Amino acid sequence: MKLFVLGCYSATPRAYTHPTAQVLDIKNHLFLIDCGEGTQVQLRKQKVKFARIKHIFISHLHGDHFFGLPGLISTFRLLGREAPLHIYGPKGIKEAITLMLKLGKSWTNYPLIFHELESTESECVFEDEKVEVYTIPLDHRIYTNGFLFREKPGQRKLNVEAAEHYGVETCYFRNIKLGKDITLDDGRVISNKELSFDPPPVKSYAFCSDTRYNERIIPVIKGVDWLYHEATFLDVHADLASPTGHSTAKEAATIAKKAGVGTLILGHYSTRYDVLEAFAEEAAEIFENTELADDGKVFEY
Amino acid sequence: MKLFVLGCYSATPRAYTHPTAQVLDIKNHLFLIDCGEGTQVQLRKQKVKFARIKHIFISHLHGDHFFGLPGLISTFRLLGREAPLHIYGPKGIKEAITLMLKLGKSWTNYPLIFHELESTESECVFEDEKVEVYTIPLDHRIYTNGFLFREKPGQRKLNVEAAEHYGVETCYFRNIKLGKDITLDDGRVISNKELSFDPPPVKSYAFCSDTRYNERIIPVIKGVDWLYHEATFLDVHADLASPTGHSTAKEAATIAKKAGVGTLILGHYSTRYDVLEAFAEEAAEIFENTELADDGKVFEY
Repeated sequence: MKLFVLGCYSATPRAYTHPTAQVLDIKNHLFLIDCGEGTQVQLRKQKVKFARIKHIFISHLHGDHFFGLPGLISTFRLLGREAPLHIYGPKGIKEAITLMLKLGKSWTNYPLIFHELESTESECVFEDEKVEVYTIPLDHRIYTNGFLFREKPGQRKLNVEAAEHYGVETCYFRNIKLGKDITLDDGRVISNKELSFDPPPVKSYAFCSDTRYNERIIPVIKGVDWLYHEATFLDVHADLASPTGHSTAKEAATIAKKAGVGTLILGHYSTRYDVLEAFAEEAAEIFENTELADDGKVFEY
Repeated sequence: MKLFVLGCYSATPRAYTHPTAQVLDIKNHLFLIDCGEGTQVQLRKQKVKFARIKHIFISHLHGDHFFGLPGLISTFRLLGREAPLHIYGPKGIKEAITLMLKLGKSWTNYPLIFHELESTESECVFEDEKVEVYTIPLDHRIYTNGFLFREKPGQRKLNVEAAEHYGVETCYFRNIKLGKDITLDDGRVISNKELSFDPPPVKSYAFCSDTRYNERIIPVIKGVDWLYHEATFLDVHADLASPTGHSTAKEAATIAKKAGVGTLILGHYSTRYDVLEAFAEEAAEIFENTELADDGKVFEY
């Protein structure tokens, strides 16, 4: 699992910071998460292959999270894309994108499939044999979802030595990997546990931006390996957080602790702060395993 | 007169080139011309004061010319702007911007005034005592206008020596600057030409992108000091120009020559070309005084 942070600053741009966009590389999928202005250029700088992006997840319709989307969709067209592109985002996103393309008479020549979200409960929005994606309803100024990306458990691993010891024939190996017990020719039943090892643990990533401090997300994100949680403010500006629909580093860390996550990744910093160390320090007092996102940074697990 | 080229490449982005956007500094106005994605960041890099931009001219509704506009409008709001912002562009631009802001519940707290354009004849879209702006109907795949920016003639300059020679009283100086003849106390009429010098010549700039080779623009742009004319292709790819609604460097130079302009500035290069010298060489064979636009380049007159 690999996370490319393309941009992780809040709205007001400075010359060298970028609004929210990330690419999650998980089980051979490249999921684009949010698409602030300039995302396509950041994708180029990170050398992400455009053609490999087939699913885009948009948390909410504030500009710093989706104004890069019309341009990216147009660029896909110019690059001759043919593969379908799935876009998951709040209701209204289809109308906006459609209008922008219609005005330019630039409709895509590849299928553009919108999955508009309205539910205020967590729901599964994508699933294949290897990965599932759930929404994480957040509490912001407008309708907003985070997204939980989770690998599905793989097959059990054959214990070759044990299989040989019992003389299990190779035609049964598939069933062993699927978790089944095996009956030998002499009638003895060998339990699957003796013949196989547990599959590697599943990895998971929860993206939570933008949101107020909101304990309702804890059951959804419980125990994830990585939690990206917005920390627009430091505790010294806590009075600004709730009215603007944002969190402090301290609040992000509190959620991380209560949800028992592996690593907390902070981001969506207000551009009022020139240095970010204070975010890490503030969070680490509550939740030690905290990392700072930054534009261009790559996390690997 | 000063021209900041923020971006001058055609649509498909590379990591380090920018789509069309320019700022023209003329008679204390900062006019923004086109607003491709990433324009607000380019404005920051060029240290253009956001608050001084009061008029934005959009040539057409292809993404590489206006997908930066929603973000810039939002940023003005975040910066606490109060001054009205005037936007001149093709019909439809109001609906698009309004929808994007509505979805984010991010309506501006400053007046946003749209001037939607539909005419296929050149028309005056802005005028004050110092500057006038006309549309230049272009021939592209969708409805497109270039823009002609022209200073108005200033007042005549007082010939102090001549005024003293004739004993003209200072109360008449204003009339002399306004071009009037003066009647002395003894009844003699002194012609204005004897008492004043011509005002400095007016400067003018014509922005023409995107367009096919189109001689119909020549009467509108005749004799301008600077002509920015798109040159998406080199002559070797001339077969691509007309079908895509673009021009070659050779065609741009031909227009410059026929219109008798001062300097031709080329831009909107297709990203298929890695070096730009060939554009200058091709154009200079027909029109010697040719310059190449480039991202971040500033022209001054």
